[in-house]
Amino acid sequence: MLAKPPTAIVFDTFGTVVDWRTSLVTELTNFGRQRRITADWTALVDSWRAAYRPSMDRVRRGEIAWASLDDLHRVSLNRLVQEFAIHGLAESDLHNITLAWHRLNAWPDAVPGLSRLKRKFIIAPLSNGNVSLLTNMAKHAGLPWDLIVGSDLFGHYKPDPETYLGVCRLLDLEPAQVMMAAAHNNDLAAARHLGLMTAFFPRPTEYGPNQIRDLGPEADWDIIARDIEHMAAQLAA
Amino acid sequence: MLAKPPTAIVFDTFGTVVDWRTSLVTELTNFGRQRRITADWTALVDSWRAAYRPSMDRVRRGEIAWASLDDLHRVSLNRLVQEFAIHGLAESDLHNITLAWHRLNAWPDAVPGLSRLKRKFIIAPLSNGNVSLLTNMAKHAGLPWDLIVGSDLFGHYKPDPETYLGVCRLLDLEPAQVMMAAAHNNDLAAARHLGLMTAFFPRPTEYGPNQIRDLGPEADWDIIARDIEHMAAQLAA
Repeated sequence: MLAKPPTAIVFDTFGTVVDWRTSLVTELTNFGRQRRITADWTALVDSWRAAYRPSMDRVRRGEIAWASLDDLHRVSLNRLVQEFAIHGLAESDLHNITLAWHRLNAWPDAVPGLSRLKRKFIIAPLSNGNVSLLTNMAKHAGLPWDLIVGSDLFGHYKPDPETYLGVCRLLDLEPAQVMMAAAHNNDLAAARHLGLMTAFFPRPTEYGPNQIRDLGPEADWDIIARDIEHMAAQLAA
Repeated sequence: MLAKPPTAIVFDTFGTVVDWRTSLVTELTNFGRQRRITADWTALVDSWRAAYRPSMDRVRRGEIAWASLDDLHRVSLNRLVQEFAIHGLAESDLHNITLAWHRLNAWPDAVPGLSRLKRKFIIAPLSNGNVSLLTNMAKHAGLPWDLIVGSDLFGHYKPDPETYLGVCRLLDLEPAQVMMAAAHNNDLAAARHLGLMTAFFPRPTEYGPNQIRDLGPEADWDIIARDIEHMAAQLAA
């Protein structure tokens, strides 16, 4: 039991709320079939995601100026279509493929769990996605957020403190009144270090069948649940 | 008919979506009755609202540093309780009265109208309120926003261009893809000047029975409606 329930719960999004891998592989495979472009789309998606952290870290270290996650996704994609020797993609195709990150599908428990939590708490993404990406994703997947908090509001990517503390400031709440929920232990460690409450639930197939990390909690997070519906039950929501 | 419908519709909030005057007068009258504090609460509310524009204009002209609308409301309230010779208010009372702006009730057409529009468009407030105020208001009044856009995201108050253009930037949309909806002609004039679409509906009792301004449209706004439900009907939502 928590000493005091939070006022707001903010959620990591990619992997925690939406199943980016299955969504992207499905969309790109369908795209390739329609356009008769043969490629290992699953490997492309995995490589694309693998470029996520290094590309954000270049921004975080100040090596490049602020760039939105849409921009970083596009730069990585341009490189990967070369590496994978995928031919026949027009500028509009590359743009549309990049926007596939706006059309990710929710894990099955996400919409019912968030809907329950929304009745009792302020709920929002706290994501490295930009506001437009997260807004379009919410419309696509039916995520019932109260507000959208994207990295572009702060010009910082998680785990920079400006993100966790920024959402507290926007909501006029102390860190102890805000709970960070994520399927990633490192995100929760950064949030706890700054005084936020923490909730963990695993997504053991986020990275596919051979996932080796984040299979379970690595600390005594304030809430440890099976999924978002189970988290809602623990919070009596 | 519009040449092309908008992708997003952003709404002025105070007066346009919520009935600040009736909400505040009711809450303060009840407060005074419970606490046996006699005052002309209606006049206090009208004076409080009258302080709104001048206080924001001091920020807009750079005479004082950025201050949230909550902060401006509190400074004005401190002055007004002196002027109205209201005694017996503790610090916690002044804080709680200031937060009455987070608990405003919607006009009767707002929730049904916004719910219809949400099915077809991205909908958000574009308000001089701060994010926490607008978030709490949405929870209180049941406003089904897709995202919350408050003045603190930009460090600017309407009609500064940074607000209208800021929401376009956050949503990654051109001004021509965004519609500003308001019961105030001057808000729409500023938005149109920057290329946004415009929608007007009157709130003829926003300022009480003797209201003299904004009783009707003062330009050929793209949509002129009776209220938000009528606006939704015109947009086939």
